[in-house]
Amino acid sequence: MARSVLGRGTARERVLEAAMALFGEHGVNGTSLQMIAARLGVGKAAVYYQFRSKEDLVLAVVEPIYDDMARLVTIAEALSTAEARRDVVVSGLIEMCVRHRRLAAVLYGDPAVDSLVQSRPELAATVEQFTALVTGGNLDTHGRVILAMIVNGIYTAAIDPNLADISDADLLQSLQAGTRHLIKML
Amino acid sequence: MARSVLGRGTARERVLEAAMALFGEHGVNGTSLQMIAARLGVGKAAVYYQFRSKEDLVLAVVEPIYDDMARLVTIAEALSTAEARRDVVVSGLIEMCVRHRRLAAVLYGDPAVDSLVQSRPELAATVEQFTALVTGGNLDTHGRVILAMIVNGIYTAAIDPNLADISDADLLQSLQAGTRHLIKML
Repeated sequence: MARSVLGRGTARERVLEAAMALFGEHGVNGTSLQMIAARLGVGKAAVYYQFRSKEDLVLAVVEPIYDDMARLVTIAEALSTAEARRDVVVSGLIEMCVRHRRLAAVLYGDPAVDSLVQSRPELAATVEQFTALVTGGNLDTHGRVILAMIVNGIYTAAIDPNLADISDADLLQSLQAGTRHLIKML
Repeated sequence: MARSVLGRGTARERVLEAAMALFGEHGVNGTSLQMIAARLGVGKAAVYYQFRSKEDLVLAVVEPIYDDMARLVTIAEALSTAEARRDVVVSGLIEMCVRHRRLAAVLYGDPAVDSLVQSRPELAATVEQFTALVTGGNLDTHGRVILAMIVNGIYTAAIDPNLADISDADLLQSLQAGTRHLIKML
């Protein structure tokens, strides 16, 4: 039985790994549970045993990112000024983008992921709170542009295929240094 | 006759305007010459009178960007050091991204545009020369990350819908200030 081939635990992780690889090749919408099963050399039922639907599977793939975001929001909201909250969220964003850089490169800008997030009130709320903390504080026009450079620069450098050879530690250090430098301009 | 409705000159510009609006709504692949004609309230023949094919039309839309890039490459290549060449190309990139920000927002990352550019040796060569000048000079790992923050930050800030209310002049000034600040770290 396929079920015995893919038990829980590591089998679940193998499905997630195969899903991520296929998402990277075909996008979320272009990947079926059937393709994931074929990649693993098991029946579709073995994949369904781990995830009831493709939506469930995509949620399981992106969940770690939203869990991190929610944790950062909680940590930041305890701080007393909008500037302190923004600085900790931006610093957390760097750490998060680097740690999930492989995943982010696969999912960034995928419309299927965006609409899934929007359809889940708890995920959409996390993104909204996070964004509010990042853009918090009274920024003038100049500050808004610099902040966009920081945030977009972090996201896109983390997923830049030209920087894929750079270690997580080096990437983290350089993004933090660049951000510290720019954030002074706000 | 449709031909008389869309003469040359401004009629050509009206087709380009309608095409850009539709590209923004449906992507390049999702837009047909028929849809462009319908948007303008003219027959398809009137559009074909201006552009022989959709490819011709897309090329006409993106051409100003590649002309600017080619001009920048020519200007930069006259300079004597890799650093001077890089700095002028990055500064030119800001000016270019801001001036074409509406167009860039529509076309950025559109796979149809990317493959059209790759299929045209002269456009692909311009992009390659431009990229070589931007990444020129001996950059260590840290420098490569900072440069990615600069270049990606410029691109994405220019097309960021949250910054659409900021004037071209203010956007230009802030991106230049942020870039000057970061480029010192290279």
